[in-house]
Amino acid sequence: MMNELNVKQCAELLTAHDEILILTHRNPDGDTVGSACALCSALRRMGKTAHLYNNVQIVERLRQYSDRYIAPEGFEPRYIVSVDIAAERIFPNGFSGAVDLCIDHHPTNSRFAANGLVCGSSASCGEIVFKIIQCLCGEITKFEADCLYIAVSTDTGCFQYANTTAETLTAAAELLRCGADNYRINPVFFRKVSSARLKLEGMIYSSITTHRDGRVAVACVTREMLRSSGVVENDLDDLAGLVGRTEGSILNITIREMDNGESKVSLRSSKEIDSSVICAVFGGGGHPMASGCTIEGSAEKAKALLLAVIDEVLR
Amino acid sequence: MMNELNVKQCAELLTAHDEILILTHRNPDGDTVGSACALCSALRRMGKTAHLYNNVQIVERLRQYSDRYIAPEGFEPRYIVSVDIAAERIFPNGFSGAVDLCIDHHPTNSRFAANGLVCGSSASCGEIVFKIIQCLCGEITKFEADCLYIAVSTDTGCFQYANTTAETLTAAAELLRCGADNYRINPVFFRKVSSARLKLEGMIYSSITTHRDGRVAVACVTREMLRSSGVVENDLDDLAGLVGRTEGSILNITIREMDNGESKVSLRSSKEIDSSVICAVFGGGGHPMASGCTIEGSAEKAKALLLAVIDEVLR
Repeated sequence: MMNELNVKQCAELLTAHDEILILTHRNPDGDTVGSACALCSALRRMGKTAHLYNNVQIVERLRQYSDRYIAPEGFEPRYIVSVDIAAERIFPNGFSGAVDLCIDHHPTNSRFAANGLVCGSSASCGEIVFKIIQCLCGEITKFEADCLYIAVSTDTGCFQYANTTAETLTAAAELLRCGADNYRINPVFFRKVSSARLKLEGMIYSSITTHRDGRVAVACVTREMLRSSGVVENDLDDLAGLVGRTEGSILNITIREMDNGESKVSLRSSKEIDSSVICAVFGGGGHPMASGCTIEGSAEKAKALLLAVIDEVLR
Repeated sequence: MMNELNVKQCAELLTAHDEILILTHRNPDGDTVGSACALCSALRRMGKTAHLYNNVQIVERLRQYSDRYIAPEGFEPRYIVSVDIAAERIFPNGFSGAVDLCIDHHPTNSRFAANGLVCGSSASCGEIVFKIIQCLCGEITKFEADCLYIAVSTDTGCFQYANTTAETLTAAAELLRCGADNYRINPVFFRKVSSARLKLEGMIYSSITTHRDGRVAVACVTREMLRSSGVVENDLDDLAGLVGRTEGSILNITIREMDNGESKVSLRSSKEIDSSVICAVFGGGGHPMASGCTIEGSAEKAKALLLAVIDEVLR
């Protein structure tokens, strides 16, 4: 049973401990890395020894913030803090049962730690860490403001996603006042992509077909497209979101051919359709508005099978 | 000489007048229409007769907000207010010299009106109108919050552009607290586009070539692409921004073939390059970071001519 803390109690616990290791989650995003870097910086300003777990999956554009804080080999933490981690299954290896303090914003948090500050109404973990640092140090530094701005903005699609609240925008405004450099950060995280990624996006947009009076949109990502565009793994973030730009569509399907001859299917839908019902037919599942499954064969074959099933569901 | 007002003085002038017509600018965007609708709503709440000039260029997604306020034929205004209009050349026809009150955020405003509230540091006119309505009525309504959220968010690319300040985000936060429905507005204004537009984007991204060690990116929009994608005029907003997503590029060129056999060229650059110098060679011009020109012949021919000139400039 996790002991639920408020911001002040969380700050008191951090103040009382030292030799702190901060964990980020698997497939680390801007929120977990930005939150971790800002917190680590604040703890060091307090004179503490604090490091980030060496999460080797951190991507280039985040590493310029995190590199300076990565724990040296042999560091033996006496207090372990997780940020933006909802469950132990997205832990880096070897920390199961070891977390002393969990700071998170996922309503589904599994309460795996001894103590925790979980604020399910926050759009990002960065908003919570912002309050903790203000409680710990009073002020935040420009570097911390940059890190927390990255956390808050990336988890809300630069304030475009439906999870953006008045509190999110207020926190972001405050971070700009503290020196966060949105002029430099926004292009890197929200606009610029590699030439290969742009080529792939071009092919994906060109591949989109609409069906059932425009209510269903399908994008195919073939192995040939992945090869000829020249993309690498880092270029493949959030491909499943592209097809959803189609006006009028309420069910958006992305089908990606895998090297093993299977096709991986991602469904995104509006509230009126439970996409997980469609995926369940193929042995997959997920949430009503975001689900997935795997179908044997090419993207075109998977598309035909899916459209047949969708006819049943939309009827 | 325009009499420069503060918010309170501006509100006093509006309070003192009636039979008010509000002007939006040519090629009306979310800021001019959103600001006009919110102001019109507030003035009517005060018991005044207020209408919007019948700007026939207002696009579908904005007309659902503006339609109810369009002036009936024969309306004879006794006080004329312009919103988000920097100069008379972007007036609708026939109002030159007729504006009594100018509300704007462009630092370059030409001070064409008798009285004006021009706040050049605001990212949008909506932020200024927000303050005026608070001064006029105390509270703003949910409808006005929607309109002003559209104004503020569209002029900042949903808070992604460099003009976004702490004040912008604070205003947006306040608008959400007043009921602005970002959940419904954001997809319509920032995400969803027609299938034809997506097809065209696909072709444009596929057409991008990079040159000069990746510092120059060029996109061609041929007549054939415009034809085969099936786009209409409303689908062509901000095509010149797409090529700028190319990582590493500091000079971004979009070349669009026109029906008359000429190619229209748009240049966008980082601070380190004055793009207007390149356009000047071809008889065009503009600002250092955004300029344009027209070149006789196909997009491919224009591209070759431009790259030759760029070699001189980048040297």
